[in-house]
Amino acid sequence: MFTLRLLTCALALAGASAAVADWQALPAKAPEPAANPSTPAKVELGKMLYLDPRLSSTGTVSCNSCHNVMLGGEDNRGGSVGVHGQVGGRSAPTVWNSAFNSVQFWDGRAPSLEAQAKGPVTNPIEMGMKSWDDVVARLKAIPGYPEAFAAAFGGGDAVTADNAAKAIAAYERTLITPNSAYDKYVSGDQTALTEQQVRGMNTFAETGCSNCHSGPAFNGPTLPEGTPFFMKFPTFENGMFEAKYGFSQDKGRAEVTKKAEDEHLFKVPTLRNVALTAPYFHNGKVKTLDEAVRVMAKLQLNKDLSEQQIADVVAFLNALTGEFPKQQMPQLPGLPNKTFDYN
Amino acid sequence: MFTLRLLTCALALAGASAAVADWQALPAKAPEPAANPSTPAKVELGKMLYLDPRLSSTGTVSCNSCHNVMLGGEDNRGGSVGVHGQVGGRSAPTVWNSAFNSVQFWDGRAPSLEAQAKGPVTNPIEMGMKSWDDVVARLKAIPGYPEAFAAAFGGGDAVTADNAAKAIAAYERTLITPNSAYDKYVSGDQTALTEQQVRGMNTFAETGCSNCHSGPAFNGPTLPEGTPFFMKFPTFENGMFEAKYGFSQDKGRAEVTKKAEDEHLFKVPTLRNVALTAPYFHNGKVKTLDEAVRVMAKLQLNKDLSEQQIADVVAFLNALTGEFPKQQMPQLPGLPNKTFDYN
Repeated sequence: MFTLRLLTCALALAGASAAVADWQALPAKAPEPAANPSTPAKVELGKMLYLDPRLSSTGTVSCNSCHNVMLGGEDNRGGSVGVHGQVGGRSAPTVWNSAFNSVQFWDGRAPSLEAQAKGPVTNPIEMGMKSWDDVVARLKAIPGYPEAFAAAFGGGDAVTADNAAKAIAAYERTLITPNSAYDKYVSGDQTALTEQQVRGMNTFAETGCSNCHSGPAFNGPTLPEGTPFFMKFPTFENGMFEAKYGFSQDKGRAEVTKKAEDEHLFKVPTLRNVALTAPYFHNGKVKTLDEAVRVMAKLQLNKDLSEQQIADVVAFLNALTGEFPKQQMPQLPGLPNKTFDYN
Repeated sequence: MFTLRLLTCALALAGASAAVADWQALPAKAPEPAANPSTPAKVELGKMLYLDPRLSSTGTVSCNSCHNVMLGGEDNRGGSVGVHGQVGGRSAPTVWNSAFNSVQFWDGRAPSLEAQAKGPVTNPIEMGMKSWDDVVARLKAIPGYPEAFAAAFGGGDAVTADNAAKAIAAYERTLITPNSAYDKYVSGDQTALTEQQVRGMNTFAETGCSNCHSGPAFNGPTLPEGTPFFMKFPTFENGMFEAKYGFSQDKGRAEVTKKAEDEHLFKVPTLRNVALTAPYFHNGKVKTLDEAVRVMAKLQLNKDLSEQQIADVVAFLNALTGEFPKQQMPQLPGLPNKTFDYN
């Protein structure tokens, strides 16, 4: 059951299901919303907030705990671990190149990075803060943060939830991994991919993977700003995989909208750096990339790939691992002479 | 009950209990053991290992989780949080300037940073790995780590627990915070401290704080290498503070040695950056620095400081916050196409 929007996309994309796909290199810069232009001060503040565990009730969980920028942008776990050792039900998506997603969260419940950034902080099993008011109170109490907010957003009462989310989003827009072997190849360097990777690239297109994993980030076509791109997963029923991985237990977008037509719709995740983001799928139940390719071909395209084809596609997907920009570690401002009431 | 060693120290230090203490600036470089000279390759590897959560059973806890170098070198919690949300019984000491400690851990059970580094990884309530063999197996499985170990320690079978500990210790020896206001003052800049801070400095010495919090790191006198420096805490009994904070529930060094003479002996912690490391004491029960000063004067020196004296000493202690060196964030090597079996 596709929504009208998806049906439209599927039709529009049908012509691209042949071997030739619209291969695009990753842009060096992510689009910025008019309401939140990036500035160095905003990015620097956002990096501090992103890495600061004091944004959690226990003082132990930061954005980076589950979306680790020192790794592939997540935690390589099935379910992520929030405050008090609680384990979430979905696998953390990578923060790298998330600026190119049409929507955020697996169920697309946030239309922007700004909206996404506000979610986990007050989620009781993630960062566990009672409210953003409590977060703002903490930030105001730490000398250095009000000054950093003022530098990023101007004077006055700059320490707000909205501004915190804007700063985090601005930082996330810098998390781009260009110059993968794939990018070099599609930019003209014929030697950048191995023979097997080129074979895998063709298999990827011929099989139909690139119908949805399209665009520069392999997460969907370029649509007008604000247009979400969802696909149904699984599209084809398969008892064996369902028994093994229980994909259908999560109703995806319908968990948010409560609409039958949204059942099992999920955002199409980027494949950039996918080699580094095992385990796979919304529930993180598939531990290896070769099995993920096998499952996707069967459940989304009703195709059985050979072991050779799977190995080729995996080789191609490994060519999507980009260059991670060097980052300076922020020294977070301290709260002098006391601590917060952590639970 | 002092051990002979402590008695000797106490006598040797008695002459320093007047207003004039042996004020020393923090060295720019920490001493290195002959068996583990620092090299850039070793430090870089150590930084990677220090920040890598894959050294824990769950893949969520790194050395940095509890000894956060982006903060004051610890987590500002009473008890730290290890795997599965388990909370430890002692407050994490700061990693900053830990290279200047005569012994490591509150109970001094590790004589060196190298020995300390091995402990938390296999502690079931900290990082929860079953064995260092399991850690080594993981590191060997991650392309990039064997190469980094070879670069740091030479070829052959370089990925070992001993080498991992050596690399982490080498990194920790770079974590020094020089150029505090205090350092500038004792180096000749008379304007570096406020009047109140100078008053507090004198009170600190006159009260006797500097008898034990001596030396450049305020954690004890410079003793021959390998000589541990412990003090009994509390030295003087006080029912009110004991009822409030339960300090004596932890027998300190005796928990390790099981010797009556070691009961309630603790390593003397550094006061460098102490303004940033609340809550205080081995059990992290004291939330503010002014109360920590009040408690210390009473329990260790049997003195009641006035509110003014406490405020002055706190002002002085704030002058011990140093400059944190800028660090580049490591990009940790990824395990391609799969993940570890995290619990």
